Amino acid sequence: MADEPLSEPEMSWRGWGDPAQAAPLPETLLAQLRGALGVGRPRPVPDSIDRVQLVPPRLDRRLALELAGIVGADGVHADHETRLRHALGRSTPDLLALRAGTPLPAPDLVLAPDSHEQVLAVLQRCSARRVAVVPFGGGTSVVGGLSPEAGAFAGVVALDVRRLDGLHELDEESRLATLGPGLRGPEAEALLAERGYTLGHFPQSFEYATLGGFAATRSSGQASAGYGRFDDQVMAMRVATPAGTLELGRAPRSAAGPDLRQLLLGSEGALGVITSLTLAVRPAPAVRVYEGWRFASFAEGARAVRTLAQDGPRPTVLRLSDEAETALNLARPTQLGSGPDDVAGGCLAIVGFEGTEHAVRTVRAETTRALAHLGAAPAPGAGDSWSAGRYRAPYLRDALLDAGALVETLETACFWSSVEAVHAGVADAIRDALTVQGTPPMILAHISHVYPAGASLYFTVAAAQLDEPIAQWRAAKAAASEAIASLGATITHHHGVGTDHVPWYEREIGELGVAVMQSVKRTLDPAGILNPGVLLAAMPNPA
Amino acid sequence: MADEPLSEPEMSWRGWGDPAQAAPLPETLLAQLRGALGVGRPRPVPDSIDRVQLVPPRLDRRLALELAGIVGADGVHADHETRLRHALGRSTPDLLALRAGTPLPAPDLVLAPDSHEQVLAVLQRCSARRVAVVPFGGGTSVVGGLSPEAGAFAGVVALDVRRLDGLHELDEESRLATLGPGLRGPEAEALLAERGYTLGHFPQSFEYATLGGFAATRSSGQASAGYGRFDDQVMAMRVATPAGTLELGRAPRSAAGPDLRQLLLGSEGALGVITSLTLAVRPAPAVRVYEGWRFASFAEGARAVRTLAQDGPRPTVLRLSDEAETALNLARPTQLGSGPDDVAGGCLAIVGFEGTEHAVRTVRAETTRALAHLGAAPAPGAGDSWSAGRYRAPYLRDALLDAGALVETLETACFWSSVEAVHAGVADAIRDALTVQGTPPMILAHISHVYPAGASLYFTVAAAQLDEPIAQWRAAKAAASEAIASLGATITHHHGVGTDHVPWYEREIGELGVAVMQSVKRTLDPAGILNPGVLLAAMPNPA
Repeated sequence: MADEPLSEPEMSWRGWGDPAQAAPLPETLLAQLRGALGVGRPRPVPDSIDRVQLVPPRLDRRLALELAGIVGADGVHADHETRLRHALGRSTPDLLALRAGTPLPAPDLVLAPDSHEQVLAVLQRCSARRVAVVPFGGGTSVVGGLSPEAGAFAGVVALDVRRLDGLHELDEESRLATLGPGLRGPEAEALLAERGYTLGHFPQSFEYATLGGFAATRSSGQASAGYGRFDDQVMAMRVATPAGTLELGRAPRSAAGPDLRQLLLGSEGALGVITSLTLAVRPAPAVRVYEGWRFASFAEGARAVRTLAQDGPRPTVLRLSDEAETALNLARPTQLGSGPDDVAGGCLAIVGFEGTEHAVRTVRAETTRALAHLGAAPAPGAGDSWSAGRYRAPYLRDALLDAGALVETLETACFWSSVEAVHAGVADAIRDALTVQGTPPMILAHISHVYPAGASLYFTVAAAQLDEPIAQWRAAKAAASEAIASLGATITHHHGVGTDHVPWYEREIGELGVAVMQSVKRTLDPAGILNPGVLLAAMPNPA
Repeated sequence: MADEPLSEPEMSWRGWGDPAQAAPLPETLLAQLRGALGVGRPRPVPDSIDRVQLVPPRLDRRLALELAGIVGADGVHADHETRLRHALGRSTPDLLALRAGTPLPAPDLVLAPDSHEQVLAVLQRCSARRVAVVPFGGGTSVVGGLSPEAGAFAGVVALDVRRLDGLHELDEESRLATLGPGLRGPEAEALLAERGYTLGHFPQSFEYATLGGFAATRSSGQASAGYGRFDDQVMAMRVATPAGTLELGRAPRSAAGPDLRQLLLGSEGALGVITSLTLAVRPAPAVRVYEGWRFASFAEGARAVRTLAQDGPRPTVLRLSDEAETALNLARPTQLGSGPDDVAGGCLAIVGFEGTEHAVRTVRAETTRALAHLGAAPAPGAGDSWSAGRYRAPYLRDALLDAGALVETLETACFWSSVEAVHAGVADAIRDALTVQGTPPMILAHISHVYPAGASLYFTVAAAQLDEPIAQWRAAKAAASEAIASLGATITHHHGVGTDHVPWYEREIGELGVAVMQSVKRTLDPAGILNPGVLLAAMPNPA
């Protein structure tokens, strides 16, 4: 068993990302939070990793050795740090749990296989021995995707796909790259950049999340208007399951029955472990330009981004903050809370263009004409400011939690005709649920992904923390989820189901949809060891 | 029970489409076929519908009355003509079976429910009574999708969705139309045209196939470069199954688990019956222009259409015939076989533009520049000729079968880097399989659907008929399917699996993929009554 923690621990154990990147909160923002929300009592993370308690491991030693035998000594870790690093995702409840001082559930063992065959062998052994397996990519889940219900099992193993890395094939004619699912966003981009290509997939978790995670959770990046969603880019995949291997994808599209790729995409480690991905790539853009545009109102801005999504021209990045988010400058985290001097009111849109010089020039000129016609006015500097801060928001959350604020995000998607009702209804539900607890919140929202038929809505919520902040948030989240379900929207556009969304996911697909998913799960994972309780309620009586 | 045959029998019982549209074969073409292929003995369809024999019905009378009770007297038919009209699709083996003179298997009863609830009740009753159910749309399957293996059942009912029609809702803001699955292409277009919209879905079967069929078989239309595939347009659907109802689709895209819409799309009536479809629509185009362009070779043309698919501009229609198809003028059926005077050699591409005047002007100008740069030369008149004949090919096949030719088509899709190998390999396999039978064929091919990562290849085969033409074709088709599978391509890009492709489909998704599909089937259709043997091999021991 390796003595050292699993390599490359770039993600801080105490919060988001690289501790060196953390920044203190602007004093102006803190003042606003204190004044408007009553945020007060700081709630820090323990100052040393050793002071975070973990539930003791319970996996039988002989079994641990059996599993170690499959992946080799380099691939197995049971030290405190590695266990902690695989215990939680990065939702606010996860981060609050770190601060709670009570022992955290954590995997007994972390395995890092380095081949499809090793993954298959681990799954088969764990299936035979009734050991729960949590597939682990970048650890960036914000929906409890790494918190299985493992009580009924002989133990819990985290299966870290980090060593399944590399660019294995680049088919330039078909513009396809076959990549290891353990590559983080920047690693994959670096490998492709050497050959002149990009995936164009830049979600907020880009710096830490893995390709396998993007696929397993149907991630959508900030440049989705131009590059599409990650699931759209998956042309072929190899998946290891306790029942064997699935090899899917022989053509961009097919009429050979249901598209089984679409059954594994979004399966969140509950049906199998993705061990190889063949992804659509594009030539790396020569030019990247981001601009700000201002609309008088969210309704006017929404109409404009809808028009672009439906009739073009189609920029690469297309986002629209609502009035509240615009006022707080959340779309420009480097200037967050910089106050009314910087705020001209209305709603800010970020519009970006990536591609060849010619393509950017053409689409940008057409978009400029269209936006002016749709009532937008330029917001100079806002595009660069957004670009500079585009991966900063999770750092801010850590600082806000430290300061005693309750801060979390949630998202949904719906058809265009419901966008206004969902925008209002979800905010109202959250506001009511927190106000009734004595902590009236600040609620900000934006449209970050657009389609001809609809859009996503992303909400950021801030309030003062109560003594039991996890329960405080759960109540608000349940109210939001209830509103989303009642309004006919989907419970998640790009975060996934995890454990947090299971009841609403099951309502969304209906009793028969759940039965279908359970039958698929029983076929691929008869012992129910894969991420039990994630995506689907844990099976009462696994085989 | 209704005395009259089921209404609207526009499709000829003896072959394709409207008998009034049938046209005699050009003498020049006949001469070519006689000379090149040795086509000789005419093999006509029986001259009267009464002379076509059907296997006698075997459904218990009491059971028939029970089912009639669900749909009402107007919705049940057991007359000879209606049974015959629901007995077969429109593959060449289907049409040859009509000519064979032996009794044809046919449903015992044809039911035409007029509501989701009636469909549900029919399925539940048939499940309880072990009666096989064949969902029936336009009857245009070319892969044996209407020929179930029903031996193990108490009888066979065709469930005709024709009465599930109508435009139920038009959400102009989201550009979504909720339509009945029983609408044929032109009926749906007429309803939408009244409101200024189009589906833009124009496959060769457009005039007769239904929306439900398009969805259940993942149809792709001739304008797929611009409007996308039909499955891409399905935003929500309602499906009746023996186990209950599925309601799927709350947003254009979601991360709420696997996309279950993609599990029902392509399910070919084997998992359920689609009773409602919510589809993406577009404003009806003001302008439609189709042009011909000529390339020196198929390789050069393929490189050009790939470049457009990957880097744009993207026309609405983009097709490329190979040298053989170009020489025979198959892309322009009204001038078919018009001979060498009309043929400048090389390969003909059809490029079409649909949209607003401004959009067409812009994209057309850009495409013209790009095509010239890619080595193409204008082929004046070819676009209009293609447009005039775009739905004519199936009529031609009837005439060719009458004349004693064996004529059939098949299709596949693959990634771009395999297009050349698949084009050559499939043609070689077909040529060998027919030559060895003493009937060397003519083989024509085109690319009809393009994606950034790959394309479809569509083959047309003609040879002299032997005494057992069905067996003769099955041998060629098996060789082609084997080549497709070995070359890593998909067994079907837009025709579906039916009964014809089952062995290769099962190979394509692998043993575990088949197990997944069977588990889904057992959940939705525990008695295995839905289209037994279509999509999946019939279950040996249904519940």
